[in-house]
Amino acid sequence: MKKYLLTPGPTELPPRVLLAMAHPIIHHRAPEFLPVIEQAREGLKWLFKTKNEVLILASSGTGAMEGAVTNFLSKGDRAVTVNGGKFGERWGQICKAYGVEADVVNVEWGQAVDPEKIKAELKKYPDTKAIYIQATETSTGVVHPVREIAQIVHDNSKAILVVDGITGVGVFDLPMDEWGIDILLTGSQKALMLPPGLAFIGISDRAWKLAETSTLPKFYFNFSKELKNIVKNQTAYTPAISLIIGLGESLKMMKEEGIENVYRRHTLLADATRKGVQAMGLRLYASQAPSNSLTAVFAPEGIDSGKIISAIEKDFGIRIANGQDQAKGKIFRVAHMGYYDKSDILFALAALEIVLNKIGHKVTPGIGVGAAEGVFM
Amino acid sequence: MKKYLLTPGPTELPPRVLLAMAHPIIHHRAPEFLPVIEQAREGLKWLFKTKNEVLILASSGTGAMEGAVTNFLSKGDRAVTVNGGKFGERWGQICKAYGVEADVVNVEWGQAVDPEKIKAELKKYPDTKAIYIQATETSTGVVHPVREIAQIVHDNSKAILVVDGITGVGVFDLPMDEWGIDILLTGSQKALMLPPGLAFIGISDRAWKLAETSTLPKFYFNFSKELKNIVKNQTAYTPAISLIIGLGESLKMMKEEGIENVYRRHTLLADATRKGVQAMGLRLYASQAPSNSLTAVFAPEGIDSGKIISAIEKDFGIRIANGQDQAKGKIFRVAHMGYYDKSDILFALAALEIVLNKIGHKVTPGIGVGAAEGVFM
Repeated sequence: MKKYLLTPGPTELPPRVLLAMAHPIIHHRAPEFLPVIEQAREGLKWLFKTKNEVLILASSGTGAMEGAVTNFLSKGDRAVTVNGGKFGERWGQICKAYGVEADVVNVEWGQAVDPEKIKAELKKYPDTKAIYIQATETSTGVVHPVREIAQIVHDNSKAILVVDGITGVGVFDLPMDEWGIDILLTGSQKALMLPPGLAFIGISDRAWKLAETSTLPKFYFNFSKELKNIVKNQTAYTPAISLIIGLGESLKMMKEEGIENVYRRHTLLADATRKGVQAMGLRLYASQAPSNSLTAVFAPEGIDSGKIISAIEKDFGIRIANGQDQAKGKIFRVAHMGYYDKSDILFALAALEIVLNKIGHKVTPGIGVGAAEGVFM
Repeated sequence: MKKYLLTPGPTELPPRVLLAMAHPIIHHRAPEFLPVIEQAREGLKWLFKTKNEVLILASSGTGAMEGAVTNFLSKGDRAVTVNGGKFGERWGQICKAYGVEADVVNVEWGQAVDPEKIKAELKKYPDTKAIYIQATETSTGVVHPVREIAQIVHDNSKAILVVDGITGVGVFDLPMDEWGIDILLTGSQKALMLPPGLAFIGISDRAWKLAETSTLPKFYFNFSKELKNIVKNQTAYTPAISLIIGLGESLKMMKEEGIENVYRRHTLLADATRKGVQAMGLRLYASQAPSNSLTAVFAPEGIDSGKIISAIEKDFGIRIANGQDQAKGKIFRVAHMGYYDKSDILFALAALEIVLNKIGHKVTPGIGVGAAEGVFM
C-alpha cells in the first residue's frame, strides 16, 4: 500500500531533498561546504525576514527552545510563558529547570491567548525579561496572535518576545524584523520539508543585548559562540552536514515557488481541510484561530479518535496524529505544512469519509471532498 | 576528479547507508519505527558491550559530553579532567561552564596520560566525583590507557569514569561493563559510518546512582527522561529519524563483518599507515600510544603541513585534516576509522609520496607504499 504521512512533524520529504541528502558526505571545514552553509544562511534570513543571522543547531526544536532561555536569562529572572498546550507548557518546564520565575498565562486548550492577559502580566511584573509563546500550538492547532502580542510587549515593557515558530515558519508570514519578534525559532521537520535533526533560531539586536547580561549556564547551545562561527559559514560544533545539504535544496524549492505562494498554498489547503471536515459534521478543536499548519478535529461523539487514526492507516496508508495528553483519544490532527498539495487533502478527506462511515459516523460520500473542491474552485 | 575523505570525522559513508537514509521518512511514533529503534538499541548495546541502555541523542558528540557532566554532577563538585589536546580541554570547559571544580591533568600534546597522575589526583582529592578522559584524543592521534585508568579509578575512589569514545568506539575494543567504564559516549560521524547529527551514550548502574544526586540544570540533555523513553523504543524529543535508519544499516554492516574483524581491520590499516609514513622519513605526532583511529604526522622540517593538505586535495581529491590550535601547520591527520579498507591507505600513501616530492621533501617513489604492502602481506 502506498504510504502517506500527514502528521505535524515529521512531514513528507520531497524526492529532491532525499536525493540531495544522498550526496556523498563532505567535510564541514572543506571549501565546498562553505557555499552550502552560506546559501543556507542567506535562505534562512530570507525565510525569517530578518537582517540578522539565523543560527543552525544540530538538535531538535526543543534544543533551540532551551537555548532561547539559557542564552538570555539569569537565575531568578522573571518571564511570562503562555501555556495553551503541550508546547506552551514546555516553555514553563524549561524555565523551571533553570530557575527562571515563569508567570504562566494558562489558556484553555483549543483557544488562542488573549493579548490583554499578557499586557496584564507585564503591568503586574514590570521587571519581566522575556515572553515565551508559540506561533502555532501544535498540540491544539491554534494560532496565537503574534503580531498583536509583539506590539503589546514592546509598548508596555523592555522584555523580549520569543516565538516558537516550529510549526509556523514557512507556513504563514512571521516577519521577524517588521513585527519586532526578538527570537524566532523553528525545526527542520515541519514546513522546511527535511528530516528532524536541525533547529534554526533568529535573534534580534535587542535580544543579543540581553544575552550579554545572561548568566545561566550553557555549553552546547551557546549562541554567542554560534554567532561567531556562522558569520564565517561555520558552526561551533560539528554540524549535521547531510541535513544542511538537504536544507539548501528545500530552501531552493521554497524560493522557486515564491514565499507568498507558499503561504497561499498553506492557506488554501488548510481552508479546504477545515471546510471538508466540517461538511462531514465534525467540529474543529480550535474554537478560534485555527492554524494553517495543521487541523485538529474532534472525533464524533462517542468515538475514540484512535479508532479513526488506526482505520485510516490500515485502509489507506495515511498516518495522521492523535491528540496529546488531555486531548488524546478526543481529537485527530491532520497536518498540511510542507510538501503537500491539493491531491493530499482531497484524498485524505475521501479516505476519512469512508473510514467514518465504516466506524459508525454516517457521512454522505463526497460531501467533505465536495466542500474542499469548492475551496479549490 | 574522484573525491576521498580521510578526515577524522566526518568519515566516508557506505552507499548502503546513503540508500537507507534516502528511504521516505517515517513517523517516530509509528509502529514501523519501533523495530528500527529497537534494532539500533540492541546494536548499540552490542557495540558498547554493555547490558545497560545506550541513549540516542539528536546532537553532535559535544552534546553528549555536556550531558555527561550535567546529569551526574552538582555545582561545586570536584572532577578530574585529562587535557592532552583539544577534546580533553573541552571537558574542562564544560565543567567550568557549569561550576564544577575541574582538577586538570595536563598532558603534553602527542603523549598519553600517565594513569599514576590520575591516581595522585584521587589521593589528593578523595571527594572527586568523576574522571573525564578521551579514549583517543582526536587532535593528537593518541590513545589514553582506558583500561588501566578504569582499574585505578575504581581501586582508589568511588568516582565514576567517563570516557569520550567519539573516535574510539567501533575502532578498538572498549568493553564498558568488563572494564568498568561508567559512561561511554560516541558520535555518528566516525567509526559508525554515518553523517554527523547523532550521539550515543552508555551509562553504568553506578553512574545512574550518582545521577540521582545531581542538581545541575538540564532539559534537552536529560538522561533520566531519555532512559524512560528508550526502554519503550522512543526518545524524549523528536529523534533524527533518517540518521537512526542509517544507524540500523551501519550496525548491520558491522555485525556482518564481525566486531573483532572490524577491530582487526582498523589495526591493520593504522599499522600500514604508520609504517608507510615512517618509511617516507616522517615522524608520528603521537610519541607514544598512536591510535588506530587516525594517524597524526609531523610535516617535514620547514614545510607547513597546510601545503601538503592543499596539494593532496588538489592533485588527488583526498581530504585530510590539519592540526588544531597549537599543532596547526605542524601536522597533518589521516583518518582510517569507519568505512575504509586497504585500497584507501595504499592510494593515500602513494599520493602522499608524489606530493612530498613535489613540495621539496624527497621520497623514493614506492617506499611508503611498499612498507604498507609489507604490513598487508
